[in-house]
Amino acid sequence: MLLTVLELIGVVAFAASGAMVGVTKRLDLFGVCLIGVFTAIGGGVLRDVLLGITPPTSLTTWKYFTTALVTSVVVFFAHAAIRKLRREILVLDALGMGLFASSGATIALDVGASNQAAMLIGATAAIGGGVLRDILVNEVPLLLHRDLYAIPALIGSSVVVACAAAGLGSNVGLVIGTVSASVLRVLALWRKWNLPGPRVVD
Amino acid sequence: MLLTVLELIGVVAFAASGAMVGVTKRLDLFGVCLIGVFTAIGGGVLRDVLLGITPPTSLTTWKYFTTALVTSVVVFFAHAAIRKLRREILVLDALGMGLFASSGATIALDVGASNQAAMLIGATAAIGGGVLRDILVNEVPLLLHRDLYAIPALIGSSVVVACAAAGLGSNVGLVIGTVSASVLRVLALWRKWNLPGPRVVD
Amino acid sequence: MLLTVLELIGVVAFAASGAMVGVTKRLDLFGVCLIGVFTAIGGGVLRDVLLGITPPTSLTTWKYFTTALVTSVVVFFAHAAIRKLRREILVLDALGMGLFASSGATIALDVGASNQAAMLIGATAAIGGGVLRDILVNEVPLLLHRDLYAIPALIGSSVVVACAAAGLGSNVGLVIGTVSASVLRVLALWRKWNLPGPRVVD
Repeated sequence: MLLTVLELIGVVAFAASGAMVGVTKRLDLFGVCLIGVFTAIGGGVLRDVLLGITPPTSLTTWKYFTTALVTSVVVFFAHAAIRKLRREILVLDALGMGLFASSGATIALDVGASNQAAMLIGATAAIGGGVLRDILVNEVPLLLHRDLYAIPALIGSSVVVACAAAGLGSNVGLVIGTVSASVLRVLALWRKWNLPGPRVVD
Repeated sequence: MLLTVLELIGVVAFAASGAMVGVTKRLDLFGVCLIGVFTAIGGGVLRDVLLGITPPTSLTTWKYFTTALVTSVVVFFAHAAIRKLRREILVLDALGMGLFASSGATIALDVGASNQAAMLIGATAAIGGGVLRDILVNEVPLLLHRDLYAIPALIGSSVVVACAAAGLGSNVGLVIGTVSASVLRVLALWRKWNLPGPRVVD
Repeated sequence: MLLTVLELIGVVAFAASGAMVGVTKRLDLFGVCLIGVFTAIGGGVLRDVLLGITPPTSLTTWKYFTTALVTSVVVFFAHAAIRKLRREILVLDALGMGLFASSGATIALDVGASNQAAMLIGATAAIGGGVLRDILVNEVPLLLHRDLYAIPALIGSSVVVACAAAGLGSNVGLVIGTVSASVLRVLALWRKWNLPGPRVVD
């Protein structure tokens, strides 16, 4: 139950971030909805395909799709007000990222994936939607050139794997993994942490 | 038999649309063939991966690949003449879209997918090739910013699901679904129907 | 054992080519690593998803991921020196391409794919990483508009299928397939072979 609520919060945050990008790119209502939905469920679909869970869970029930669609419509009509919530959306997005990384790793372990696969597929679930969003609007994916994003995701999924290896229950891993990844992401945004910058190319 | 003929018509239309884009982008013969083939079979490959049908049907038999390849070569050498058939190609493309939406939903139901999965995966099969084409040539996918395309696809796959739920045979659903989606698409092109336009961004 | 060593050489070459593109695009350390890793393991992940091998082999063991990561870090800090090895990297890349085409076809036949599927999925494994690299940095994929790349890949995977059909052992096919594809690619680079150029668009 808690998992479902948290997951839907993540879907709302990711759909909002996708739809905001769509509005900025001056897409029409349908384009904004499409990119909102792709951003929100893309990571989960990719995770399920990599794990052999077909059809992917987020295509099998209406919950995720409808939540993402409604969020996108709201953003389309209320984007001016939502733009003022930019900071709040970034925090929501960090929470969604942490949760998708942790739930992705948990699901991977559940279906018998190796520890490495769980770490990498969890991180993929967390970053996949955003990468798809950026490819669709023809931008170099943000995570390739700004902010720490994929490293917190990888840390979140690794924490889940470590908790499982330590014999802790999967809910414990889920909570600690989500909190680690999300807090690290918020700290990185707040403190403007970055890795070594681009090399000078002659 | 009818299904196969209709499917190959869809492959021809999608390969032609992909190859025309390749010619416009001044790709060489191989690039034009590659993008024609990707556009024609991309949606079906995506559908099969999402449904766990591996290897995907369109990679398993020569029929689809060869049809797409021959079409692309013809477009490369005869693009000036084909350009004059622009309207006819749009109608063929609408037919292909409707058919892929309907056959995708039918196949999804056949392998036991839920109604929602059949609707969404059918629509994905119909739009996937075009999205892949636009990503490859580095354009924002057409369906994000022009014309009604994905909505007719979603309606076509939904009609198939409704027919199945009503106990009608799968051929009935296939025909009604294809006709609904294709006619709606042609009407949208002809009447220049659009959804609410882009919001003004301050 | 020989297969593993050859495969890791391919991973090094593909990771280096991806990381070099990242450096040229002025990505930071993480972006360079991410694109190096995606380029090196993207083709293999795609191959496994198309064959229903989930989770994909290159996500299940650390070998490929670590090799790709270390290569990318080295390129980031030593790119000036590595740039002088441009010709050597192209030869390595040709070897990697040939090997991925041949090993992809071999693996496909092993899991019972048809001859056509083995040919097409082998070629996909060889070109997939490079296409992903180019999409991520927002370029029209190189193979669409320059050099012979996919045709040697397709020839390599076809040679593997022909050897298997002729009853030769899979190691024989692997070696002949890799050599055919790689030599053809190097010859194409050296002789500047190209297919018929772009058509004039009025």
